[in-house]
Formats: sequence, structure tokens, C-alpha cells
Amino acid sequence: MAAFRHTLRVRFQECDPQGVVYFARYPEYYDLTITELWRTAFGSYGAMVGSGTDMVVAEQRVRYLAPALFDDLVDVDVSIDRLGDTSMISSYTVTRNGELLVEGDFRHVFIEVATKAKKTIPDEIRTVLAGYATAAES
Amino acid sequence: MAAFRHTLRVRFQECDPQGVVYFARYPEYYDLTITELWRTAFGSYGAMVGSGTDMVVAEQRVRYLAPALFDDLVDVDVSIDRLGDTSMISSYTVTRNGELLVEGDFRHVFIEVATKAKKTIPDEIRTVLAGYATAAES
Amino acid sequence: MAAFRHTLRVRFQECDPQGVVYFARYPEYYDLTITELWRTAFGSYGAMVGSGTDMVVAEQRVRYLAPALFDDLVDVDVSIDRLGDTSMISSYTVTRNGELLVEGDFRHVFIEVATKAKKTIPDEIRTVLAGYATAAES
Amino acid sequence: MAAFRHTLRVRFQECDPQGVVYFARYPEYYDLTITELWRTAFGSYGAMVGSGTDMVVAEQRVRYLAPALFDDLVDVDVSIDRLGDTSMISSYTVTRNGELLVEGDFRHVFIEVATKAKKTIPDEIRTVLAGYATAAES
Repeated sequence: MAAFRHTLRVRFQECDPQGVVYFARYPEYYDLTITELWRTAFGSYGAMVGSGTDMVVAEQRVRYLAPALFDDLVDVDVSIDRLGDTSMISSYTVTRNGELLVEGDFRHVFIEVATKAKKTIPDEIRTVLAGYATAAES
Repeated sequence: MAAFRHTLRVRFQECDPQGVVYFARYPEYYDLTITELWRTAFGSYGAMVGSGTDMVVAEQRVRYLAPALFDDLVDVDVSIDRLGDTSMISSYTVTRNGELLVEGDFRHVFIEVATKAKKTIPDEIRTVLAGYATAAES
Repeated sequence: MAAFRHTLRVRFQECDPQGVVYFARYPEYYDLTITELWRTAFGSYGAMVGSGTDMVVAEQRVRYLAPALFDDLVDVDVSIDRLGDTSMISSYTVTRNGELLVEGDFRHVFIEVATKAKKTIPDEIRTVLAGYATAAES
Repeated sequence: MAAFRHTLRVRFQECDPQGVVYFARYPEYYDLTITELWRTAFGSYGAMVGSGTDMVVAEQRVRYLAPALFDDLVDVDVSIDRLGDTSMISSYTVTRNGELLVEGDFRHVFIEVATKAKKTIPDEIRTVLAGYATAAES
């Protein structure tokens, strides 16, 4: 069981002439889900940025197992797998009625908003994010 | 004959499950072409922004006559039809081998970069843009 | 009061370097809302396509009054203004807490799925869509 | 030195409110470059599909080192690293004036157009693709 779930509806314009979700939309689904996780955890993503901390994607990987189609309702499940000094590794799956469609993982680096330099994850953020690990995966 | 032409290749991810360019991509094609017109006229769009002037889209209209397909080479022709005190009206067509696919027009408003307030089009910009009108259409 | 409302959250990737929703995303918001109207009215958009009827965008127009920002919750209100023999005119607004941000209108043409030829709007579709007109606007 | 290079201009709408290319646009840049490689190698991507063979993305990975900005001219270099029975592994870099911005790799699976079943890479395709390997990287 993943630590956080966001359910979304596949949009027509996210699908390509093969009739399926274009492969580069899945990292966007992940990103939307992280925004929702942040809303639940911190009020909003903007609240963290307003406090001087932002993050950037340093690495991402996706495996494609089966396609999602226009108007499908898909579940995006995210877990925070590892919290380093300045970086965070998370993994996600996209499923439809429990069928695994896509799985991937991300590495984010935390930065100072003003300078864009790497920064140690602030303790109050780290503590909350630690609650989104999953026993099975961490 | 239009005042400025930019030729572009339809991308796979711009096409939808109907197998044609998604309708909301055409205003993007227009925007790309304006960027190229600015490069020819002013060095780059960023050069104008760097000098303190920017513009925003105030209105746009598109008529769809025939679809473009993945990998098509299409010509986007733009004319500056009217230069008001703070606004510019331009029109464009998208054609493929001379066949009219889409036509539209835009109204932009010039703004001060710092304040985002409307501003009179600077004379040095107005003079250059006046050269992109077309006898037939203005 | 509009005939149908869909509320959506602005996505990070829909915003541009000016920090606001990119202008060509608003016709996409309209399209998402029509999909939801179809779900309410007909079960799903795919149900209509499955019965042999589809539609294409023939014309669209948008006026931009104020920007929406990342993570804003916006309301998209749609009304079916006119049902011709083969075409439908609808209008929409995008508002945030009642503030008007964007307004626009669309003309769709109904087509036969198999041939892509224009077709008369089937009576069972016309009857339902007529319920989405608004007294004030029609 | 990579086996194939495609140079492209960063579009305004590909950039996000951080002022840089949104991370999920890079796999799209890769995809555009593969389309151009196919044009050079086989006439067009559509020519391969027309002959009954298509391919789908099975896996992709991207590492982000430095951001590209609006209007930047970037070089996308692709190499075909491995040709299996039904799959192809390729890698790519995105550079700007020689500075490495992004690197990634893809695994594609070849499929039969009609059935979407995996298929052995046809010999005439394999032979041509083998010419896009690089000594240094393979």
C-alpha cells in the first residue's frame, strides 16, 4: 500500500494518435500527485516556496507496462523512499482498477529559492515527509 | 502574400486520438511564429523584454477548415494588421502546400515589464512592426 | 448562471515563464469541461462516439481579462447557446472566486464517425443539449 | 561523438514558472529527434508504420544537470546502443554550446501495427539502425 494516492482522469489532449496516453505525460501525472501530497502535508506547494525552499527534478525513470486511454480514471500512488541530506527519492505507480500500467521513481534536490543552491532539507519538512515512506518499499 | 512566414513540422505529441493536430495547438503555432518574426525584426523576443517592454495576449480567434497530420510540414503566415496606441492586431493562416487549414487573428497588449501596466508601443518597435503589414489585408 | 460548471485546479506545467496560465491552455480547459458535461448528459463522450456521432471544433474565440496562477482553483461555466442543423455554438467563462478571468465561445460541427462527413445532430442528443442553454444568454 | 544530431529551439510554452524547460519536455525532445533520425534513415516514421511495424516506449530514464531556457538552441544527440530481438536501447544527450544539460536513455519495443504484439525487428530496419551505434558508447 502506497503512502499517498491521487486519482485523476485522463484528458483527451494527453492522448496521442496511437489512442493512448503519450508516454511523456506520466511524469506529469507524478508531478501533479506530488503537488497534492504537498497540499495535504504542508497546506500547498507554494507555502514551502514562500518559506524559501523549492525543489527541482534531478532524475526520473519510468517503466511502461500497459496503456491508459482517454477518460480512464487512474490512481497515482506515491511513496517517499529515501530522504538524504539535500535530496529525496520517491517512487510511484499508475494503476487502473488495480492493474499496474506504469511505475517510476524520481530524485529531487532541495534548493534555496533565492540562490537556487542546493540546501539541506529543513527539519520541519523532513519530519513530515518521513510519514510518507512505506514499510514495504523503504 | 503574408508579411512573415515560419515553416514548422507537426510533432507526434501535438496530435490527438482523432489522428490530427489538437485544435489548441494552432494558437501555439501562431505564438512560435511571432517569436520568429521578433527574432528577424528585433534580434529576439528577449531583447524587447530586456528593454522593458513585453506583451500579453488579450484576444484570439481561430477558424478550422481542414486538419494537419503528424509529420506534415505547414507554413504559418503572419501579418500585423493594425497598430493602436497600446495594442496590436495580427492575423495568420496555416497552410500545407498552399491548402488553407486554419486562419485566425490575435490582439496583443503591450505592457511595462516591471509593473505589467499597459504602455504605448515604443516608437522604435512601432516603426519596425509597421513593415509587417500587408497591402491586401491592412 | 451558466448551465454547467466544472471546477479544476491549475497545473504547474500549464503555467509559463510569466508565472501565469499559458493562453492556449484555456481552450483546453473548455474542452475538459465539455467532456464533463457529456459525462453528465450522456454517460461519457465515448458513448456518443460509440453510437456513431463525433464532433470537431470549427471555430473558437477567447478574450483574456486577468491571469490564473499555479494551483488556483477555477470554475469553468459552459452554456449551449445555439443548436443548428449540424453545428452547436457554446460559450464559456473561467472565473476564480467569482472574478472573471477569461471568456470565449466555440462552434462545433457534428460528424459521422465512419466518414467524418457533417451530419444532422441526432434528435436524442439535441433534446438533451437543449437543456444546457441559459435563459440569459440564448 | 553521437550517431545522430537534431538541433531545436526551446519554445516559450515548454518553459515553466521557474523560467526553465519543464522536466517532462526532455523526453519529448528525444522523441522529436528519433522522428528526425527515422526520416534520415527510412524516409519517414510513417513509412515504417505503413510497412506494418511500429514501436512503443517501454522504459525511459533522464538525468537533469543544468536547465535550458526559452529561445535556447539545443543539440539532441542520439545513439542506438543495443538492438535486441524485439527491443532497442538508445541514449541521448541535450547540450547547449557543448555544455551537457540532460542525458537519458530509452528502451523501445517493436510491435506489429495490426495486432500490437511484440515482433522481431525486421532485418532491413536492423541493418540500418546498426549504423547509428557509436564506438565509444556501445
